[in-house]
Amino acid sequence: MSHPQITFRKTKFQGDSVLSKRRQTISRTTVRAQLEQLRSTGRYDCFKLKWHPIYEDKSMWPVPFHLFWDSDIAKWIEGACYFLADEYDAEIDSTVRELVCMIRAAQQDDGYLNVHYTVVEPDKRWSNLRDMHELYNAGHLIEAAIAHTEYYRNGLLIEPIEKYIDLIGKQFGPGQAQVRGYPGHPEIELALFRLYSVTGNTAAFDLAQYFLTERGNPEGQDGKHYYDWEREKRGESPWLRSDSYPMHGNFWYCQAHAPITEQKTIEGHSVRATYLLTAVADMLYLSQKDNRAIPNTQAWSDALYRLWDNMVDKKMYVTGGIGAMAQWEGFGIDHFLPQGTDEGGCYAETCASIAAMMLAERILHLDLDGHYADIMELCLYNNVMTAMSLDGKAFTYINQLASSEADKSVREEWFWCACCPPNLTRLFGSLGGYLWDHGSEEDNVFINVHLYTGAELAFEVNESSVTLAQKSNWPWEGKTDFQLSAPSSLRTTLRLRLPAWAKGAYVLTPPPSPDRIKIEKGYITLDPAYVAENPAFSLEVLGFEPRYLSPHPYTNQRTLSLARGPIVYCVEDADNPWETNHFKDVFVRTDSPVTEKTLIDEKTGEDYVALQSKCWKQAVSNRVLYPIEDDCAEPRDLVFVPYYFRANRGGRGQMRVGLVNGGIESGIIFPERE
Amino acid sequence: MSHPQITFRKTKFQGDSVLSKRRQTISRTTVRAQLEQLRSTGRYDCFKLKWHPIYEDKSMWPVPFHLFWDSDIAKWIEGACYFLADEYDAEIDSTVRELVCMIRAAQQDDGYLNVHYTVVEPDKRWSNLRDMHELYNAGHLIEAAIAHTEYYRNGLLIEPIEKYIDLIGKQFGPGQAQVRGYPGHPEIELALFRLYSVTGNTAAFDLAQYFLTERGNPEGQDGKHYYDWEREKRGESPWLRSDSYPMHGNFWYCQAHAPITEQKTIEGHSVRATYLLTAVADMLYLSQKDNRAIPNTQAWSDALYRLWDNMVDKKMYVTGGIGAMAQWEGFGIDHFLPQGTDEGGCYAETCASIAAMMLAERILHLDLDGHYADIMELCLYNNVMTAMSLDGKAFTYINQLASSEADKSVREEWFWCACCPPNLTRLFGSLGGYLWDHGSEEDNVFINVHLYTGAELAFEVNESSVTLAQKSNWPWEGKTDFQLSAPSSLRTTLRLRLPAWAKGAYVLTPPPSPDRIKIEKGYITLDPAYVAENPAFSLEVLGFEPRYLSPHPYTNQRTLSLARGPIVYCVEDADNPWETNHFKDVFVRTDSPVTEKTLIDEKTGEDYVALQSKCWKQAVSNRVLYPIEDDCAEPRDLVFVPYYFRANRGGRGQMRVGLVNGGIESGIIFPERE
Repeated sequence: MSHPQITFRKTKFQGDSVLSKRRQTISRTTVRAQLEQLRSTGRYDCFKLKWHPIYEDKSMWPVPFHLFWDSDIAKWIEGACYFLADEYDAEIDSTVRELVCMIRAAQQDDGYLNVHYTVVEPDKRWSNLRDMHELYNAGHLIEAAIAHTEYYRNGLLIEPIEKYIDLIGKQFGPGQAQVRGYPGHPEIELALFRLYSVTGNTAAFDLAQYFLTERGNPEGQDGKHYYDWEREKRGESPWLRSDSYPMHGNFWYCQAHAPITEQKTIEGHSVRATYLLTAVADMLYLSQKDNRAIPNTQAWSDALYRLWDNMVDKKMYVTGGIGAMAQWEGFGIDHFLPQGTDEGGCYAETCASIAAMMLAERILHLDLDGHYADIMELCLYNNVMTAMSLDGKAFTYINQLASSEADKSVREEWFWCACCPPNLTRLFGSLGGYLWDHGSEEDNVFINVHLYTGAELAFEVNESSVTLAQKSNWPWEGKTDFQLSAPSSLRTTLRLRLPAWAKGAYVLTPPPSPDRIKIEKGYITLDPAYVAENPAFSLEVLGFEPRYLSPHPYTNQRTLSLARGPIVYCVEDADNPWETNHFKDVFVRTDSPVTEKTLIDEKTGEDYVALQSKCWKQAVSNRVLYPIEDDCAEPRDLVFVPYYFRANRGGRGQMRVGLVNGGIESGIIFPERE
Repeated sequence: MSHPQITFRKTKFQGDSVLSKRRQTISRTTVRAQLEQLRSTGRYDCFKLKWHPIYEDKSMWPVPFHLFWDSDIAKWIEGACYFLADEYDAEIDSTVRELVCMIRAAQQDDGYLNVHYTVVEPDKRWSNLRDMHELYNAGHLIEAAIAHTEYYRNGLLIEPIEKYIDLIGKQFGPGQAQVRGYPGHPEIELALFRLYSVTGNTAAFDLAQYFLTERGNPEGQDGKHYYDWEREKRGESPWLRSDSYPMHGNFWYCQAHAPITEQKTIEGHSVRATYLLTAVADMLYLSQKDNRAIPNTQAWSDALYRLWDNMVDKKMYVTGGIGAMAQWEGFGIDHFLPQGTDEGGCYAETCASIAAMMLAERILHLDLDGHYADIMELCLYNNVMTAMSLDGKAFTYINQLASSEADKSVREEWFWCACCPPNLTRLFGSLGGYLWDHGSEEDNVFINVHLYTGAELAFEVNESSVTLAQKSNWPWEGKTDFQLSAPSSLRTTLRLRLPAWAKGAYVLTPPPSPDRIKIEKGYITLDPAYVAENPAFSLEVLGFEPRYLSPHPYTNQRTLSLARGPIVYCVEDADNPWETNHFKDVFVRTDSPVTEKTLIDEKTGEDYVALQSKCWKQAVSNRVLYPIEDDCAEPRDLVFVPYYFRANRGGRGQMRVGLVNGGIESGIIFPERE
C-alpha cells in the first residue's frame, strides 16, 4: 500500500510553503469551482441516465463531447475525498454521497456502468475499445472508489465498482469465452493495480497484467490486431479515422503498434503513454513485493527504463512538459521540441506531466535514483503548477513554452474535455504521498525524502509512533530543518535527495563523520547512528544561483532559459511591457549578469523570486543582411518570473521560456533580396 | 507564344557548360532509360486498354498505383519531342508515333480519354475530382499534344486531345448543364493556357479561367464546397480520407480551402500549388497581352505575389527546395524548414522546384525583376540538378538537405509515382526557353538575358535574322562574352541579369558611358546605342567568392551553408570519410578561411569547384556539460562539393547542406544527469 494516493494521509503540510498555499487554494476554492462546472455543464446529473441535448451533437467523431463525463465525476469524487481527509466540509461530503448514490443507481443488472453506452448507444458496448474510453472511464471509477472507501470506510462505491470489474474481467482476457481487447486509452491498468494493492483483489491484478501483456499483439484476435478486428466488425474502412490519427493504422497513437516490451521509443498520446508506463512500473513493483511471478520480468523492466529514458532524454521540455504534437496530444520524433504553435508544436499537456510524476514516483520504488525525483519535482513546480491560476479558478490544458498570436498565454475556466483541472485536484490532494516514502523491517526503519517543503510524516512501527518533520523555504532557499521523533529501539536510516542541479554541493549540520554518510545515486544516506545522535539536523542544498538551461543541440533550439533551484523561469509582457512579438526577436547572452529579487506580487499576494538580466533585439528581415552588432548597442532590462506565475497578472498574453542565445554569430539571411 | 516550351527551339546550346552536358546526357541516355522503365513496368501499353495485374492492387486508397500512367506516357512524349528537335533519333521518333496511335485508339466515342476510368472503373468518371487525377492526366496529354504538334506539324495528337477538352468543357463550368468541379491536382490550367497561346483556342482559355475562379468556392455546387458535394454523392464519411490529409476536410492539401484570390499563404501539396500559380501568372500575362479582360485582375495579381513571397521568404530552402512535409508532399507552417527526416521533415520534391522555375519564368513576363530569375537559377542549379545522377540513369524524388540513417542520400532508377524523372526531361528539353526572352515592336528589339551559359539565340524581326550568342564558364566563373548580330536598322536593347548575390558588382567591357546603361530591379539595361557600337562585349558578374548562407532566424536553423555563385554546396562522406553521424555534430565557423580548387572528378569526368574549410566536432550528450572550447582543439579539414554532385561517387549516403554555426556559446544541456 505504498501509493501516494493512499499514503498521503500520513503527511500533514505545515507552514505556508508554495505547495501548502496551492493545496489550500484548491481545498477552499478549486474543488467548489470544479463542482460548479460539473453542475452547469450537465455532467453532475449524467449518472441519472437521462437524455442531455449534448448527446445529439454529432460534430465530433467518433468521440462525442460527453464521452468522458463519467471520468469527470469520478475524478472529482476522488479529489474531494482527498481534501475531505484534510479538512471536513459538509457540503462536499453530502455532494460526494449524492453522486455515489447516482452511480450506484446507474449500474445495470449485469454490473455494466457507463453513461454513453447505457443512454446513447446501448447496443454498442465494447464495440470500439480503440477510441471510445469505456475502460478509461471504468479506471477512473475504480480510483474514485478506492479514494471513497479510504475516506468513508464503507463499500458504497467500491462494491458496485468491483461488480463492474468482474463483468469486464469476464469480457476481456485470454480465455475461450473472452475477447482479446484492451483499452485505447490506458488508465484502468494502474487503477486495477491500486485496487489489488488496497483490497488484495488478485483478479484485478491479473486483469491489469492481461491488459498490459496483450497490448499491441499483432495477431491477438482471430489472427488480427484487436483494433483491426473490432474495426472490421464495425464495418469501417481502415481509412476512416478521427483527426487524432494523422495516417491510417497509426496504432502508436494509443501505444498499440507493438507489444509494450518491444516498443523502442515512447510514442503517441502522452497521457496514455505515461499512464501505461505507470502501470508497468507498478506491476514490476507489486510482483516483486508480493512474489507474484510475471513472465519476462527483465523485458518489462528493460522496456520501462528504455521508454522513460527516451521520454526524458529526447522528448521532454525544460519545464517537464511532454508532448510536442497537438494533433495527437503526444510525442513527436526524438528531439522535436518546438516552443510554440508558430514553430510547429508544443502541447505539454497538464495531465501528461501529472502522469510523469506518477510514473517517476512508481519508479522510485524500483530504483531509488534522485534522477526520477528530480524529474518529479521539475514537473511539479513547472509544467504542473503553471496549469492553475493562483486563485485556483482558471486552468491551462496545453502548456506551451512560448506564446504566439495564434496561441496566447491565457487560461480557461473549464474545457469540454475536462481531464486536466480535476487531475490537478487529485494530485495536490495526494501530494503528501509524493514527498517521501518509508518502510520498516523489524527494528529497521527507513525514510526516503524526495521533496522539500514544510510537512510532517507520521507512521507506526511496531506499535510505536515515528514522526519526521521538515521545515524549509523551498523552492526559494535550499535549507531544510529536520526533526525526527522515534523510539530509541528503532534504527532509522534517512535518505535525502540531492538534486542534480546542486552538483553535489550541500551542507549538513551538524556535520556527520564520513562513516555515517554515503552519497549514492542522488541521495544522501544518513545512517541510524547519525540520526539517533542528531534527531534535529538541517540539510542545506546549495546551487540556488540562477543558471542557464539550454536544450539538446539536436532540438535545433539554440535557446537559453533561466532556472533557479527547481524553478524554471519565463518572461512575460506583464513585466516587460515594451514587448510586442512574444519575445521572439529578443536575445540574451550568458555573459550578462543575472540579479535576483524577492518580491510579493501586489495583485495576487504571492511571494516569489524574480530574476533580471539584459536582452537585445535582433533585427529580423530576410531581405537584408542583419548585423547583430549594431543591435547590441541598446540592451534592455529583462525581468523573469517563475513559469508557474505566468498568466496571473493581466498583460497581453506574451510569454516565452527559451530566449535566443545571442552568442551566435551574425549571418547572411537567405534569400538575399534587395 | 512566349512559353519556354515553345521558344526553346530558337536557342542552341553551345560548348560544354554544365547545362549543355546535362542536356546531352538526358538526350543520349535518360530519354531511353525512361522509355525502358515505361516498357518494363507496363505503362507503355496502358493505352491499349487491356487489363494489367497492378489494376487489382487495392493496397493504396483511393489513388491506385497506376492512376498517373497516362501522364507518365504524356510527359515522356513531350520530353522526347523536345529532344527530337535537337537531334533526330529514329527509334525515339517511331516510339512517339506508336504511342500516339495507341492514345488515339484509346479515345472513347464521346472524346473521353483516361485509362483508369475506361478500363478499371468505367462507371465512375468524374466522381472524385479531389483525389483521382483525371484532369491532371488530361493536362499532361494537352502538353504532350502541343509538343507533338510543334515537332511533327500534324494534328495526330492534338486533334483527339482537343476533342477531349471539348468534353471536359461540357462537363465543368458555371452553366446549367455543367457541374462546378475543378481538379484536385492542378495542371490542366497551365496546359490549357498554353494551348490557347499556341492555337488561339479561346474555349481552352475560358475553361482554365473557370477552373481558377471556381477553385475553393465554399458554396460552388448546390450550396456546398464541390469536394463535399462529390464526397456526399459517393456516400463517403468526411472522416474517410487518404494519408495525404492529416485531418478531415483539409482542402488546403489541394489549395481549395478558399478561393485563390483570398488565400493568405501558400499551402498544401507543393507541386499542385506551384502549377496552380503558374496558371494564375499565365492568365494575368495572356489577358494583358491579348486584351482579354478578366474580373478582379488586381486581386489575382495580389494573390500571385502574396503567395510567391510567402513561398520564397518563409517556405523555401536555401537549395530552392520547397515543401517541408512528407505527409502531404508540401508546405509546412511559415519558417518550418527542417533539413531532414530526423528533424521532422524536408521533402523538397524535384517536380516542385521545376514548377517553381516555371512559375518564376511566367512572372518574369509580368515583372522583369532579377529576384524571380535568381530563384529560377537557384532551383535549377541546386534542387533540380541534384535530382538526376551525372550518368542520367538515377533520380531523386525528395531532396533533403541532410541525410539520416532513415533517409540516406541515395538515388533510385524509377518510382512507382514517376512524376519527377520525366519532368527533368521536359525541363532540360525546353531549357533554352528559360535562358532569355525577347520581343520587338517595329524596329525596337529587346532581349532579356536571365541565365548565363554557352548558347545562341536566333529569331527573326521584320524578316531579318537577329542572333545573340553568349559564351561563359558559368556557374564557375562570372564572365560572359556576348556577340550580337542584327541588322543596323534595328534598335536592340539588352537586359542582363545581375544576381543579388553579386551585390551590384560587375564589369562591362568595353565600359559604357553612364547614359548608355541603367540598372533596375536586378537587370543591367544596355541601350541600343551601346549595343550597336559594341556588338561584342563582355559582362563579368563579380561575387564568385564562397559565401555563407544562413536561414532566417525563425527557422530555428542556426546553420551555415556555403555557396559560390549560383551553386549551393554540401558535404558528403565521399570526401570526408571520417564522418559517421551525417555531419550532425560537425560545426563550422565563419572565421575559418575557405579555399577553393577546380577539380575533375575521376569517376564521373565532371569538372567542378570544390571548397575546403575547417570543422570541429561538438560533444553531444545530455548527461554532461559540454564545453565546446575543449572540442575546438582539433579542427578537421572539411571538403564541400556542389549539392547537385551528391550521391554520384559512392560513399555511405551521408550528406548535409547546413552545418551547425559554431559561433554559438556553449550551454548547459538539459536535463542534467550524472
